[in-house]
Amino acid sequence: MTITTCFSPSNYSLYKNDEAIIVVIDVFRATSAIVTAFANGVEKMIPVATVEEAKAWQQKSCLAAAERNGEKIDGFDFGNSPLTYERSIIEDRTIAITTTNGTQAIVAARGAHQIIIGSFLNLSAVVNYLIQEKRDVIFLCSGWKNKFNIEDTLFAGAAAEQLLKHSLFGTDCDSTIAASILYQAAQSDLYSFLEKSSHRNRLAHLNLEADVRFCLQQDVFDVVPRCNAEGHLVLE
Amino acid sequence: MTITTCFSPSNYSLYKNDEAIIVVIDVFRATSAIVTAFANGVEKMIPVATVEEAKAWQQKSCLAAAERNGEKIDGFDFGNSPLTYERSIIEDRTIAITTTNGTQAIVAARGAHQIIIGSFLNLSAVVNYLIQEKRDVIFLCSGWKNKFNIEDTLFAGAAAEQLLKHSLFGTDCDSTIAASILYQAAQSDLYSFLEKSSHRNRLAHLNLEADVRFCLQQDVFDVVPRCNAEGHLVLE
Repeated sequence: MTITTCFSPSNYSLYKNDEAIIVVIDVFRATSAIVTAFANGVEKMIPVATVEEAKAWQQKSCLAAAERNGEKIDGFDFGNSPLTYERSIIEDRTIAITTTNGTQAIVAARGAHQIIIGSFLNLSAVVNYLIQEKRDVIFLCSGWKNKFNIEDTLFAGAAAEQLLKHSLFGTDCDSTIAASILYQAAQSDLYSFLEKSSHRNRLAHLNLEADVRFCLQQDVFDVVPRCNAEGHLVLE
Repeated sequence: MTITTCFSPSNYSLYKNDEAIIVVIDVFRATSAIVTAFANGVEKMIPVATVEEAKAWQQKSCLAAAERNGEKIDGFDFGNSPLTYERSIIEDRTIAITTTNGTQAIVAARGAHQIIIGSFLNLSAVVNYLIQEKRDVIFLCSGWKNKFNIEDTLFAGAAAEQLLKHSLFGTDCDSTIAASILYQAAQSDLYSFLEKSSHRNRLAHLNLEADVRFCLQQDVFDVVPRCNAEGHLVLE
């Protein structure tokens, strides 16, 4: 089983392998929000590429989340702050969601054997799932508007490092090797390590330090959201 | 002055800044070969995207270099092994050159204020040139068929680290920050660090260890090849 890391949805066609499990990563904050929502009892999430699609689902009595450039769009129930996905509001509900980066990556990966949602919040759950499934793995970083970002890369490195301890997995992928080395440099204090990163600074301007600290916690939730045949996110 | 790093020619449009100096990097081996050729007295090199264009220049009594997938193409004077660009053959000559990755990156960057050629062989010469020119810098890694590669990233990190010691330069670019951290992890022994990398292994299969060792030497040559108005590489 081979591990590959793709730093941007715009490069996904170079790494595409429809036999693989694709782990979509958007640490700040879409995949952290999705994992939190499932841990708090949401039944289904529908990732869509456009704000218009999310609005259309909202009009069919779904909840709907829409974020662009780090901010919630007016008229929607949520942006992508994980702290807002509270059990009392979302339990047993369906939420359509569109975000600047993360949902675009989910859409780009359609057609793969399976798409699952990764974040530091469910790191070990993701790793255990991948070990159990015994398939090639592609870590698909959402990046920022198709540019490389550090936080998604760190998650890919953290998960790759755990998988590579198993004889089942190997890699000859330079981006996976680089991600692991970056994670080794960062792991003792992710928060400080990310202090200089561009997206962290983008969120700082929006006063989202609480979100940043929340998203960098490891193994808080034991859920692995995955796409079903309809392209909707579910737990089973 | 801001420093940006682009990990693949296919992402260049995301980072494009026509006011910047673009440093094209293909450590294994196109830019190492170009730097060596200029150090050994070549007068001009003509980077072209296709084998056919290189052949057409050869028929006009230029020397011509063509490499695909690590190997010299039959009928050409050179591939991209720097060790073959000997002074006795190339002094005062013009060489048309096409390679799998490096010349594609040069072609992608056309239109920028200036394009220069970087490799470990001329690292300090490149850094000194950039300090003297006082402009934004984009490190454009050639990668491998548009995928991320480690060796080009390490050069970007090495050069960025030197530039960032000058108050003139700053960065908020995650790929530049990541490249610097990778270089810090690698710098004590680049050769061993690259042992696992994909392209290094690709070259090992072709018995090119001597080339690898040659390309990882720092500051052997004090030349900065750059594109002139015609898109040809020259020293002045």
